[in-house]
Amino acid sequence: MERILIPGTNGVSKEIADSISRELLLKVCKPIYKVFPDGESYIRIPCDVKNKEAIVVQSFIQPQDKSFFEAILIGDALREGGASNSILIVPYMAYARQDKVFLEGEPISIRVIMETLRMLYKRLFVVEIHKEESLKYFGEGAVNISPYTYMARQLGLESSNVAVLSPDIGALNRAKTLSQFLKCSYDYLVKRRDKITGGITMEPKELDVNNKDIVIVDDIISTGGTIASASSILKKYGARHIHVLVAHAIMLGEAIDKLRKSGIDEIYAANTLPKKDGIKYVDIGPLIADYLSSYS
Amino acid sequence: MERILIPGTNGVSKEIADSISRELLLKVCKPIYKVFPDGESYIRIPCDVKNKEAIVVQSFIQPQDKSFFEAILIGDALREGGASNSILIVPYMAYARQDKVFLEGEPISIRVIMETLRMLYKRLFVVEIHKEESLKYFGEGAVNISPYTYMARQLGLESSNVAVLSPDIGALNRAKTLSQFLKCSYDYLVKRRDKITGGITMEPKELDVNNKDIVIVDDIISTGGTIASASSILKKYGARHIHVLVAHAIMLGEAIDKLRKSGIDEIYAANTLPKKDGIKYVDIGPLIADYLSSYS
Repeated sequence: MERILIPGTNGVSKEIADSISRELLLKVCKPIYKVFPDGESYIRIPCDVKNKEAIVVQSFIQPQDKSFFEAILIGDALREGGASNSILIVPYMAYARQDKVFLEGEPISIRVIMETLRMLYKRLFVVEIHKEESLKYFGEGAVNISPYTYMARQLGLESSNVAVLSPDIGALNRAKTLSQFLKCSYDYLVKRRDKITGGITMEPKELDVNNKDIVIVDDIISTGGTIASASSILKKYGARHIHVLVAHAIMLGEAIDKLRKSGIDEIYAANTLPKKDGIKYVDIGPLIADYLSSYS
Repeated sequence: MERILIPGTNGVSKEIADSISRELLLKVCKPIYKVFPDGESYIRIPCDVKNKEAIVVQSFIQPQDKSFFEAILIGDALREGGASNSILIVPYMAYARQDKVFLEGEPISIRVIMETLRMLYKRLFVVEIHKEESLKYFGEGAVNISPYTYMARQLGLESSNVAVLSPDIGALNRAKTLSQFLKCSYDYLVKRRDKITGGITMEPKELDVNNKDIVIVDDIISTGGTIASASSILKKYGARHIHVLVAHAIMLGEAIDKLRKSGIDEIYAANTLPKKDGIKYVDIGPLIADYLSSYS
């Protein structure tokens, strides 16, 4: 079946689509896109998609609701145009943290996104969704792409004295998987209350970080508060270098500054969100291309 | 079945919900609503909706994609909370003008909105959707509320020498219905090319407007260009007063000024969109309440 690649409506999506098309030598069809003066989006797919497999790349960056809506507009245009198969690649999936009812009366936001996408797309690839279980709302054909090992290889993070930490026990598997690739030890951070000062500290459960190069691995960093306080303590315990490896660097306000001041040497992120100074980005396109190849 | 009214996330929706609750003496449940620093919406319905009929009022005002997304978040919260029936009232339905494929490769935007709402709501009431046929994408249970007769009665537009005009033949039925209430003649405007100047003029098909009070009736005014050029010509032909009766007054940029300068005496609009100076608004809440009563 002929494949056609459709970059989404924002720069992040275009960059990743370019990268995928270079890897897989796919024909690219750029949508015609504008926003009307009243704020409504207009999209048109100016290519014949009939009986083809259309691969759409749309990262749900801010404004998230618009990015999401544009993905379903493209999905509808593909359906209307008679595409025989449509695949959506979402480098950053918004609303993934509202994945359950924390307080009575809340929606499961990620569920309505998944159910809506399911109406229009047959397959869904997401780069590191907050909780992989959320993909069940899409049903069959949804795949999570974990980027950490790929990123570590691209960055050459292997070193003789490295160790991996996750910010909490819930995310320990991420640290474990990465440590297997780096052939090193791993652990998670625990919150402890200082008996004298009453302050909250974050420290490794058991790992001795003295003289080690630490890689903290996380899926999303928003304010950077947790990681920054962990970093300060790791420094006190003698950590040599501290690197942060994150899939999605939201980095609100002064987050990057805060992380730098806490002693973090380098922040590595996938290019799933708009770029910010002070972060070293890894292009996730080739990894997504690998997944697309193994599926076809 | 117990009914509960849930105002949406914007001022327009709250005002209309207030009005409906006064008419029908409904219990109101205000959602807890915020936007996270990264731009994602948070909504919570802090009331027991189990086995109740929930009526949600959400106008899809700018930013339209956010207003729409919040309506589906509320719908999901109601489903999660076990509401036995959920009704959505949309005073202004966005994307209703993209109701067909005008150019190959376009989506039918209103279709994806309807299909998404259908997953979460059993009934849908829309104030004057651009084309009533679009409601078929929602399926059974979707109702269009035509506001013009109600508005004309509220405004006391009856006068001895009134006539109604629609901006084109396609919208003639609106003018006809209103003229039946006002017991007056009606017509539509036709575009004609001036044989000498080559310019486009808009004039009534047959109606003699001399010394008449004209009511131009329309569903949406965006730039006001068409209505303004029609008005200038009606004035030349001796129209006494010119009133505009519109369901949805978007009024981009200088639209209101343009209409005033073209000789329009008064612009009447339903309160389905944020208010602007120079327009006299009619509260549409009581009319919606009538529809809700006749349904229950």
